Amino acid sequence: MSIEDENLISHVQRVLSSANRPELCKSVLPTLLRCISEVGEKLRSSQQVAAVGSSNAFGDEQLNVDVLAEKIIGAGISKCSSIITASSEEDPIERSSGEGASEAKSTGTERYALAFDPLDGSSIIAPSWTVGTIIGIWDGDSALGGVPAEKQIASLLGVYGPRTTAFVAIRVPGITPTCFEVGLDQKDGLSTCTIVQPRVEMPTGPFKTRYFAPANLRAAADDEKYFQLVTHYMRSKYTLRYSGGLVPDVVHALVKGHGIYVSPVTATSKAKLRRLYELTPIALIMECVGASAVDPTSGEDILSKPIEDCDERGGLICGTTEEVAFAKQLLGLS
Amino acid sequence: MSIEDENLISHVQRVLSSANRPELCKSVLPTLLRCISEVGEKLRSSQQVAAVGSSNAFGDEQLNVDVLAEKIIGAGISKCSSIITASSEEDPIERSSGEGASEAKSTGTERYALAFDPLDGSSIIAPSWTVGTIIGIWDGDSALGGVPAEKQIASLLGVYGPRTTAFVAIRVPGITPTCFEVGLDQKDGLSTCTIVQPRVEMPTGPFKTRYFAPANLRAAADDEKYFQLVTHYMRSKYTLRYSGGLVPDVVHALVKGHGIYVSPVTATSKAKLRRLYELTPIALIMECVGASAVDPTSGEDILSKPIEDCDERGGLICGTTEEVAFAKQLLGLS
Repeated sequence: MSIEDENLISHVQRVLSSANRPELCKSVLPTLLRCISEVGEKLRSSQQVAAVGSSNAFGDEQLNVDVLAEKIIGAGISKCSSIITASSEEDPIERSSGEGASEAKSTGTERYALAFDPLDGSSIIAPSWTVGTIIGIWDGDSALGGVPAEKQIASLLGVYGPRTTAFVAIRVPGITPTCFEVGLDQKDGLSTCTIVQPRVEMPTGPFKTRYFAPANLRAAADDEKYFQLVTHYMRSKYTLRYSGGLVPDVVHALVKGHGIYVSPVTATSKAKLRRLYELTPIALIMECVGASAVDPTSGEDILSKPIEDCDERGGLICGTTEEVAFAKQLLGLS
Repeated sequence: MSIEDENLISHVQRVLSSANRPELCKSVLPTLLRCISEVGEKLRSSQQVAAVGSSNAFGDEQLNVDVLAEKIIGAGISKCSSIITASSEEDPIERSSGEGASEAKSTGTERYALAFDPLDGSSIIAPSWTVGTIIGIWDGDSALGGVPAEKQIASLLGVYGPRTTAFVAIRVPGITPTCFEVGLDQKDGLSTCTIVQPRVEMPTGPFKTRYFAPANLRAAADDEKYFQLVTHYMRSKYTLRYSGGLVPDVVHALVKGHGIYVSPVTATSKAKLRRLYELTPIALIMECVGASAVDPTSGEDILSKPIEDCDERGGLICGTTEEVAFAKQLLGLS
C-alpha cells in the first residue's frame, strides 16, 4: 500500500494499544483491506458479468465473480501467518490456510480463524447495485463451538459502490469495542487507505427520519405479525431503503447513524442468512457501534449462540437498539 | 477514447443508419458517455464526500459532488457544436452552450438542447449506494414547449455502482426506437466503452419473480389508495427492491427485464421529480424498451404533455406495461 497505509496502521495501533495484537494490527487487517480494495478494482472491469446477468444464465457468470473475489481474499489470507484456518460461503469447510505454511503458522501466539462471504448480493450485481464482502475474524484455530460474542474479535464489511469503502469492527479483551470506516482506492497501481470515519456510532434517538429495511418481504404474505410490523412502519412514515444486499442495507444504517433491518424466519419462509459468513460478522459490527442484532425466532443476541456447523442459517433483526426492541415486541419475542 | 469506442460508434451508426444524424452519432453520444465515465472515475476517489455525508452537514458536501459532475458534463457539452443550449437540475435555465461558440453552433442542420441531472441520488451517496446521471437530448434549440414524445430524441442514464454503465435510448424519425447498455471503464487514462447489451427490452409477462419499487412510501400513510397498492404487492408476494435512487431503481427493471416503480403525488405529498431532468428522459427509455411511463395524477403518458418551465415537477408510474396498467387501475386512473 501507499504511505496512507501508515494512517491505517497507526489508527489500529491506537485502538489496540492496550492489547497485544501485532499480527492483527500490522498483517491481518491491512491485508484484508488490500484484498477488498482489489476486489473492488476487479469488479469495475467485470462488465461482461453484468451482460449475462439479466438472463437466467446468470448463475454461472455470477459464480465467476464470486470465485474471483474468493481467490483474491484467499491469496491474501495465505500471506498472513497468524491466520490458521479459513472457510467461506463458497467453500464452507474450515481448511488450513496457506499451502505448506502450516509449520510456520503453528508457532505464533496470535492464532486466527477466518470466515468470509467473498461477494454478497448476487441478485443485484447485474444492475450494478452496491454489493459487498463480509469477513469475520475469530480467536483460535476454529470459528466453531465457542460463544461468538467472545471468540469473534473483529469483522469487516467491504462495500463496492461508487466508491470502495470498508467498515472494521474490533472487540478484543482489554480495549473499548470500536468500529471505523475507511475509504479504499488505487493510485498508480497501489492500494490507498484513508480513515473516513474514525468512530462509527449508532446512538439512540430521537431521529428526524427513521429508516427501515424489510428483507424477505414476501414472507409477510403468509405471516401476519411481519405484515403488521411492515405496515406499522408505513403508517408511522418511516423512510424505506431496501436494496436487497445485506452489506449495503446494513451500511446504510451505519452511515446514517440509525435504522432497522428485519429479515424474518416464518412458517413458509426458511432461514436464509448464513450464521458464520453473514450474521455473526454483522452482529459484531452492530454491537461495536452501540446497536443490536438479534435472532428473529428466539429474540436472543445473534452472538450468544455457538455455531456448530459452517452452514447454519438464521434470520436477523438489527439496527438502532430501541428499534430492535420495538420489532421484537411487535413480533412477540419479548 | 480507446479503440473500443469504434464499437460504440459503429453500433450507433447501425441503429441510426436510416437517419441523417452524424453529429449525434459521432460527437454527442460518444462525448456524453465519456463524461459519464469520467464522473464515475471521480466519484471513486471522492472519499471525503462520504465522510461528512453521515451528518447534517451533508448538503454542502453533496453539492460539491453535484457540481463536480456538472462541470465534467458541461465541459463535454461545450465541445459538441450541435448542442445549442443546455440546462441542468443544478442550473435550471436553458443557456447557450459553450463560450464564444455560438457562431459556430448556429449553422449546423443538427441542433440539440440538452437537459440533465448531473448526479441523482443525493441521499444515498454517503453510504456508497449506486447513484446516477440522467440526460435528455431534444431536437431544436429548446426542450420547452413541444410534445416531449416528438422533441426528445434520445436519453442516457449513467450508473455509478461497482461498475460504471450507461443506458442509451434513441428514438428519431425513420428508425426503430432502441435502447442499449454500455460498460464504461478507464484503462491507461483512456475511457473505454463496451456494448454490454445491444438491445434492452422489457417484454410483457408472465414472470416468475415480480419486482416492485414503492417510492415516496411515506405518502402511503395519508393516502389509502397508495397504501392498498403497496399492500397488494406484499400480499401478492412481489419482491421488494427499492434503493431510493431513481436511476438504480429504474435500471434494476431494465436489467431484470421487468418491474414496477411507483412515485405517487398525494394530497399531503408534493410532486418531487423534475419533469425535464428526471421524468422525460426516463420515460423515453421506458418507451424504447417496450415499457410504459405515466403520470400518477392524470394517468397520461409522461411524454404527452409539453414542458413549459424547467422546474416543473411530477410523480411517476413506470415499468412493465401490464404492471403500469394495473397500478393505474388500482389508483383509480383508468
